[in-house]
Amino acid sequence: MSEPLAPGSVIGILGGGQLGRMLSVAAARLGYKAHVFEPGAAPAGDVAARVTRAGYDDEAALRAFADSVDVITYEFENIPTAALDVLEAIRPIRPGRTALAVSQDRLIEKAFLRNLGLKTAPYAAVASGREMQAALDAVGAPSILKTRRMGYDGKGQVRISEPDDAMDAWVAMDDAESILEGFVDFSLEVSVIAARGLSGEVVCFDLGENVHRSGILATTTVPAKLPPRLAVDAALMAGKILNALDYVGVMGVELFVTPGQLIVNEIAPRVHNSGHWTQNGCAVDQFEQHIRAVAGWPLGDGKRHSDVEMENLIGNDIDRVPEIAREPHAAIHLYGKAEARPGRKMGHVNRVKPVTR
Amino acid sequence: MSEPLAPGSVIGILGGGQLGRMLSVAAARLGYKAHVFEPGAAPAGDVAARVTRAGYDDEAALRAFADSVDVITYEFENIPTAALDVLEAIRPIRPGRTALAVSQDRLIEKAFLRNLGLKTAPYAAVASGREMQAALDAVGAPSILKTRRMGYDGKGQVRISEPDDAMDAWVAMDDAESILEGFVDFSLEVSVIAARGLSGEVVCFDLGENVHRSGILATTTVPAKLPPRLAVDAALMAGKILNALDYVGVMGVELFVTPGQLIVNEIAPRVHNSGHWTQNGCAVDQFEQHIRAVAGWPLGDGKRHSDVEMENLIGNDIDRVPEIAREPHAAIHLYGKAEARPGRKMGHVNRVKPVTR
Repeated sequence: MSEPLAPGSVIGILGGGQLGRMLSVAAARLGYKAHVFEPGAAPAGDVAARVTRAGYDDEAALRAFADSVDVITYEFENIPTAALDVLEAIRPIRPGRTALAVSQDRLIEKAFLRNLGLKTAPYAAVASGREMQAALDAVGAPSILKTRRMGYDGKGQVRISEPDDAMDAWVAMDDAESILEGFVDFSLEVSVIAARGLSGEVVCFDLGENVHRSGILATTTVPAKLPPRLAVDAALMAGKILNALDYVGVMGVELFVTPGQLIVNEIAPRVHNSGHWTQNGCAVDQFEQHIRAVAGWPLGDGKRHSDVEMENLIGNDIDRVPEIAREPHAAIHLYGKAEARPGRKMGHVNRVKPVTR
Repeated sequence: MSEPLAPGSVIGILGGGQLGRMLSVAAARLGYKAHVFEPGAAPAGDVAARVTRAGYDDEAALRAFADSVDVITYEFENIPTAALDVLEAIRPIRPGRTALAVSQDRLIEKAFLRNLGLKTAPYAAVASGREMQAALDAVGAPSILKTRRMGYDGKGQVRISEPDDAMDAWVAMDDAESILEGFVDFSLEVSVIAARGLSGEVVCFDLGENVHRSGILATTTVPAKLPPRLAVDAALMAGKILNALDYVGVMGVELFVTPGQLIVNEIAPRVHNSGHWTQNGCAVDQFEQHIRAVAGWPLGDGKRHSDVEMENLIGNDIDRVPEIAREPHAAIHLYGKAEARPGRKMGHVNRVKPVTR
């Protein structure tokens, strides 16, 4: 195994949102400096050693950024390919390009997962009205039409409740290449936050149980109410995915739990909102775990010392902070965003509870 | 009670060492920006929104700093009085001037504690060879001669093992006003990390048991092995001190435990090394507790969810980090200092254990 990144090295982070912010703090805690690249406003800037504000089409800025760092990671998967080409010629990008290519495109992601022998929702590609009809015949309704690329937190998605909705949905996509996904009748959704180190070791945090509201994660509760056998299955599935991608870093794997089996909903090649509970549940949280992987450290063990219920503070939820601040055992994490808009993630709270086994 | 500091407000921090660094992260976590004032190299700069590098005699820089922040706090007590005068005319300083005046001078501190009815080591002022002799007659040997002002981590101190050492010790002080302190025959040293909010509420973290090596804190273990009655006494003593100073913020109170009673060793009007364990033992740690107080928030409840053993990484201890990184349940906190010198605090590790009651 290669040596860990030397103390004082600089970790470049693409994206200056809350994930980049919490990664920056973790990098500092391990003795590194964070340099954030962000075209817009950067909440991460408050805790990063340096911020470059430039667009992903600004080649000179990308080059200068890459030259100034020792390794590059990212907080979101939708980084333009041309930017990645510029950066990768100068410094290593971790997790690597394969993980990005797979997760940037929902269709490729589904095919990748199926090829590993993992279960996914039924799906079909849609790039025309004709394909819409064929996809509907194959997948049925209710189902959901999603753009293949971009889209998060429920954006870029249209629900098809009955067959008659299909053509309107396709028109709403404005010709964007899409994928029709069948609904899965699941009893709960869980996340595996898994990590793979530079030397290939894989570690999973305990499973979290997710509840979404309006397509946005509302809460993650750990431990998830899941039979032990399925928890082991989930870790094995995550390991399979990470190994297949020769992955380095933390990945969020969302799973649907159906009677007797687990179905992969989606993967995110980065730290994940459903792993925020680890900040107050584990000695090494997902942000540090990611930096450890990227910097070539041994991984933390992933065991939790406490149960945690993570609640996202979205939009006006931020107004409840003074009240939450009075709760015992509540750890508040605010993102320093200037303006609370509906659907905008403003912070989260981790409610810490004695551990159950 | 006044309103808490508005989201996005700027907290000015005097001092850019590891305490200022961890305060900066806590400020960001509560949605504030940190602006650090530091004459030298500033490890805090890596995680602060802004750093002013200037001396405490640079009035223009002090004014500009004060103008740019909403409230001022500090990571160390030895701030020159003239600088405080400049700052305080522009923005509130929390904790206030009284706490600084008391803790900047060991003699005033001892008198203050005695006036509250608290026990201290026997002591006497020394400002001349003649006073040295009188102090020795009153306090005896073994004892320790310390400068009244400045001095930390065992600096500015000379041990007097037997009466014949006394005059050499005084000469070594180079005419600095000093205090002779008698040794206390204690079974252990504990710290109370206490906080007082803007509205006057007082909260204490659980007591930590300290072990020093070469005058520098080596480990703090929580819980301290102390009879419950004395633990209550310690909290009451801390409350008395904070209330007497109309204190706002976190204070470290070091106590000697002798058979049947507690003796105050010293107080520090700031977050304290012996409170670092709270980062991995409590939902709200000492750094956030301090920012909460300074920003007018309700205080965290101070209850621990885990037992913790904090070990300081001093000088070459930093070379053990790769090995510590492999330990399960070990949370590493490095300060990002460029050079490891003997006696220099480079980081600490919190070993997290299941809680005992």
